[in-house]
Amino acid sequence: MIFASDNWAGAAPEISAGLEKHSAGMASAYGTSDFDNQVEARFCELLETQASVFFVGTGTAANSLAVAAATKPGGVAFCHNEAHLIEDECGAPEFFSAGGRLVRVPGKHGKIDPPHLASAIARYPNSFNHQGQATLVSVTQASEIGSVYSCEEVAAISAVARKNDLFVHMDGARFANALVDLDVSPAEMTWKSGVDLLSFGGTKNGCWCAEALVVFNPDLAENLPFLRKRTGHLFSKTRFVTAQFEAYLTDNLWLNLARHSNTMAGRLADGIRKSDRARLAWDNQSNLVFFVARDEIAEGLTKSGAQFYPNITPRDYGDVIGEDECIYRLVTNFSTTTSDVDSFLELLG
Amino acid sequence: MIFASDNWAGAAPEISAGLEKHSAGMASAYGTSDFDNQVEARFCELLETQASVFFVGTGTAANSLAVAAATKPGGVAFCHNEAHLIEDECGAPEFFSAGGRLVRVPGKHGKIDPPHLASAIARYPNSFNHQGQATLVSVTQASEIGSVYSCEEVAAISAVARKNDLFVHMDGARFANALVDLDVSPAEMTWKSGVDLLSFGGTKNGCWCAEALVVFNPDLAENLPFLRKRTGHLFSKTRFVTAQFEAYLTDNLWLNLARHSNTMAGRLADGIRKSDRARLAWDNQSNLVFFVARDEIAEGLTKSGAQFYPNITPRDYGDVIGEDECIYRLVTNFSTTTSDVDSFLELLG
Amino acid sequence: MIFASDNWAGAAPEISAGLEKHSAGMASAYGTSDFDNQVEARFCELLETQASVFFVGTGTAANSLAVAAATKPGGVAFCHNEAHLIEDECGAPEFFSAGGRLVRVPGKHGKIDPPHLASAIARYPNSFNHQGQATLVSVTQASEIGSVYSCEEVAAISAVARKNDLFVHMDGARFANALVDLDVSPAEMTWKSGVDLLSFGGTKNGCWCAEALVVFNPDLAENLPFLRKRTGHLFSKTRFVTAQFEAYLTDNLWLNLARHSNTMAGRLADGIRKSDRARLAWDNQSNLVFFVARDEIAEGLTKSGAQFYPNITPRDYGDVIGEDECIYRLVTNFSTTTSDVDSFLELLG
Amino acid sequence: MIFASDNWAGAAPEISAGLEKHSAGMASAYGTSDFDNQVEARFCELLETQASVFFVGTGTAANSLAVAAATKPGGVAFCHNEAHLIEDECGAPEFFSAGGRLVRVPGKHGKIDPPHLASAIARYPNSFNHQGQATLVSVTQASEIGSVYSCEEVAAISAVARKNDLFVHMDGARFANALVDLDVSPAEMTWKSGVDLLSFGGTKNGCWCAEALVVFNPDLAENLPFLRKRTGHLFSKTRFVTAQFEAYLTDNLWLNLARHSNTMAGRLADGIRKSDRARLAWDNQSNLVFFVARDEIAEGLTKSGAQFYPNITPRDYGDVIGEDECIYRLVTNFSTTTSDVDSFLELLG
Repeated sequence: MIFASDNWAGAAPEISAGLEKHSAGMASAYGTSDFDNQVEARFCELLETQASVFFVGTGTAANSLAVAAATKPGGVAFCHNEAHLIEDECGAPEFFSAGGRLVRVPGKHGKIDPPHLASAIARYPNSFNHQGQATLVSVTQASEIGSVYSCEEVAAISAVARKNDLFVHMDGARFANALVDLDVSPAEMTWKSGVDLLSFGGTKNGCWCAEALVVFNPDLAENLPFLRKRTGHLFSKTRFVTAQFEAYLTDNLWLNLARHSNTMAGRLADGIRKSDRARLAWDNQSNLVFFVARDEIAEGLTKSGAQFYPNITPRDYGDVIGEDECIYRLVTNFSTTTSDVDSFLELLG
Repeated sequence: MIFASDNWAGAAPEISAGLEKHSAGMASAYGTSDFDNQVEARFCELLETQASVFFVGTGTAANSLAVAAATKPGGVAFCHNEAHLIEDECGAPEFFSAGGRLVRVPGKHGKIDPPHLASAIARYPNSFNHQGQATLVSVTQASEIGSVYSCEEVAAISAVARKNDLFVHMDGARFANALVDLDVSPAEMTWKSGVDLLSFGGTKNGCWCAEALVVFNPDLAENLPFLRKRTGHLFSKTRFVTAQFEAYLTDNLWLNLARHSNTMAGRLADGIRKSDRARLAWDNQSNLVFFVARDEIAEGLTKSGAQFYPNITPRDYGDVIGEDECIYRLVTNFSTTTSDVDSFLELLG
Repeated sequence: MIFASDNWAGAAPEISAGLEKHSAGMASAYGTSDFDNQVEARFCELLETQASVFFVGTGTAANSLAVAAATKPGGVAFCHNEAHLIEDECGAPEFFSAGGRLVRVPGKHGKIDPPHLASAIARYPNSFNHQGQATLVSVTQASEIGSVYSCEEVAAISAVARKNDLFVHMDGARFANALVDLDVSPAEMTWKSGVDLLSFGGTKNGCWCAEALVVFNPDLAENLPFLRKRTGHLFSKTRFVTAQFEAYLTDNLWLNLARHSNTMAGRLADGIRKSDRARLAWDNQSNLVFFVARDEIAEGLTKSGAQFYPNITPRDYGDVIGEDECIYRLVTNFSTTTSDVDSFLELLG
Repeated sequence: MIFASDNWAGAAPEISAGLEKHSAGMASAYGTSDFDNQVEARFCELLETQASVFFVGTGTAANSLAVAAATKPGGVAFCHNEAHLIEDECGAPEFFSAGGRLVRVPGKHGKIDPPHLASAIARYPNSFNHQGQATLVSVTQASEIGSVYSCEEVAAISAVARKNDLFVHMDGARFANALVDLDVSPAEMTWKSGVDLLSFGGTKNGCWCAEALVVFNPDLAENLPFLRKRTGHLFSKTRFVTAQFEAYLTDNLWLNLARHSNTMAGRLADGIRKSDRARLAWDNQSNLVFFVARDEIAEGLTKSGAQFYPNITPRDYGDVIGEDECIYRLVTNFSTTTSDVDSFLELLG
């Protein structure tokens, strides 16, 4: 009954097997081997376009390299108020962009609201050097509270960005979970909706550590080999990332793992809807479920062996919770079982 | 017959098995699990001291974090003229230290010469704000040309550093290779010789990607959790690094792998000594062998399937090579076979 | 009738004369002359304590050096929502602190509210490396909307800072204007109220360009000579700053200039109170007056030759302004005349 | 008899008068006034081309902004072994360029040698992300040892730079001294010889603090307003710099002051040539004279009241000096008198 985080899980058996399969033999280092190139080509095929792919080991690296690739002196990037980028990366995007700034944009359900975005950008007119240069909007798909932007919603944000000459980044730490929720193609959810840079995450969905920064806009790819190297994110044995991705993208493993996680989350949500000791904070999407309960109930669950966190992004949800209540987060993953879910629901009652 | 680099090899079978063994089950993320702590404790035991251990995925990350941990505004770090730190990391140490500077110190056989170090430091008197603040000396063990500092040599450099209030870092990308060459204890080669920070490398010696920044001086450890996170080097599933290290440090695997590499290098060197078409550039230590030959001979070897590089750090070796000659580098690794070596030597003739 | 900004004025005659007086003759460069030392001693005498004084040319430099001096990796500084530091310095504090972050703290009347500060800091618990390390609170005295913190208010903020191991910075770009408004001693308004670092501004109050970063806490002074030099803010002929400050601090010139500015602002405010075409947005302090009027009235004033800006920090003042109205800012300076003021008031009617 | 440095002098009377003349009255701040624009136009007229001019207060700021404007991630700039940029700016160019690197290029007489430059650049092939991206060459005119590049020499360096897609910067801290020495036009010595960015210095030649970064290549100007602001180098009362420059550039004051300095240096050199207690280290150009003498002679001069420094860039001049000897530097300035010179020569004997 561990619903603490999807990164508490290890690696899916197929990922382990993929690593094992490629562990012997010699191959050109630093991402220059034929095998590395094949996996890069696999990404392009999957995304139905030519793109540059930069393999790294953490989502923070992928996100921060994206911000850095798009930045200018005095660069200002915009993200949702609760985005991982601004809440949980210890200032890495600011560091990678040599002191760029992240600006919080409000919006309901964990998603950037386009009019709020437009007015946030308007505070940084390009002719006025006292403030900075707006450079990038980042959307988190799925968001920190598990919600998912529709393609139309991504496109609406991209439209605001384009109008202001900004680039669009998608933080896809839970890309697969969002994708199966929407049931669209990777191309539709990204470049066809105006995305220039994509952090394509594998780690939270069954890989050990496999993240790819996919760059659709060739102008933005130019400096990335240098940015990645000088931030220490070029692996000598890049093969260990590409081997994970090869397995991940074979036979729809990635989609199947995400579908399973989402299904488990749905089962949790259904159970909570029926409980009279807790209620859903909002309808779930992807693999995150948020429920509201009194503290004593949460404590009881914990004592009985369930592991989960109170909402770690303690924003204002005054409209959702009552006195003595808190929002709790449940995260499912590729290895969550129906038995895990049902035991939890039974405990909850 | 691939002697291009030790990072062309994949993972040793024991490392693969270690990963597989730990792939199932849930564990607290971001390096906070009991297992992560056990592996950290294993390092302390091995090094016979209390130390802080920061697991990362690349040597560049470990080295650059070490420089950053020791830096001050206007910080200046000293390393050998040919050190990986200054030659091959695309300015990562400078970037991590917010624009610190690396200063080249000359010295024969790839090793810093203490008197040269002392005069290089003397150019940065601490009272004079026009230049900067000397902060750190970094020694590469084994060095880029395969040589190994004796413990006395490390201690002599540390003495110069201490006298000037500088910290000492050891870049141990080939730590095990140096250690088995010297046949001393890890403690003797590091903190007992004055080392404050150690990049303990596993990747070049049979791991996929496993590096540990070991900090002997507790003052230097304080900011490292933040530095590591904000450079994107804190893995969520840190377990995949610690699982590699657990296997690496079990039953002397790490020493055995390094001993094998070094033995293969010795066999190469012995063969070259007997050849009349090439000669050793200098006596080998660790797992790197450098030989001098005419270009046509190197081309012949390459055409016949041997893979190796001309010396990638093209410093001045006028005293070693003649006209139409070049220095070539051979690197052995855990998976090099006597058959690889003997085939190469047969080709060389 | 120019009320656009106090930095539209040139230099007070006494400042010009001071420069002229010291222009001949040779003196040791880079702030090391006897004269430079005397002026530094004058600051200590004035502030009734030993302090280190770093002369620079812009307020942005003084503020950003203060943030940098107090920062740590992943450093987070707190300032008011509308502070110059975060609104008008193009990210200089972030750049100087190697990618540190500024966090906006709300508070009425342009002043940080201590409980809001406490909860903003609480979001950055020091043990949690996913966010950052809270390092500094900066108060702007007088604030961007002309309000002035009482010594008790400064002390209350310092108490919150101390409790959380944060340093306290005062942005005194309008230090003199605040001081004469409060009628306290410089010591009372600064270190006696818990301030560690002070940007002591001369430029807005009759100097050409004369700013001093005064450091009360000796630990914070250590790196500043290097920080100042490596940001290009050490003047070779520092004398031209110290000569301005010598004149500025002689015979209470600085207080007299500020008192005059404040008096002119008071005269403006009194006049506006009597007008039925405009009203004060809030009671004025220091040398800034904010009034509310319909756009057409402001346009009429402008057409008749008055120069002033709409409130350049377009925060939410919904409770102050009605429809079709705007807040306008009037700034007086050392050279503002009663005739300037009365002409404006006559125009306003 | 003060020959310590040209920045020990204050301001020329005409500069003081220029400041005084513009001290009264209100003008739009932050370099946006008509007067500021006029002075910028004056620069363009003088340089016979359209250029962007960024006024700052220190040479370090101008130089470092130039490096930053031309940099890319992993940027590497090249300068002479003894350049001010790398010897005396506490790493400011590295800091401004977010951790860029400066590389030392050797060359006789303080000047970059084009073949050495070419081979230094060759170490940074653009396709190889392990090292960095070569971006800029900086020449110091006049050099740190007083030598002056001919226009042909500048052009030869520019040719190497162009061939490698690098930009060319001229550090003209002593621009006027070099110009009158060569007796060419400012255009010939700069953009007509391939210079993209010029640090046009006034401070060392009779201004208080007046430096201009002149950008001939419009692509490089785009980010500079933001770079200047976020490094704290945009003065609110920019007028105090432009007023200095207006006076400086009126009636050839700048050339006359430099010619005087150079003449005084020539008089010193002539005298030293006749002395049998000292000899010129090399033939002087511009306003710096270097002589070789035994330590006891230098001490005698110092005791008798002469002020000067041993060569502060202690490079290897083994071919110039004998045992017990040292090189000493004499710097003349706009206010040096023939009496200063003759007294010194008399002392020397």
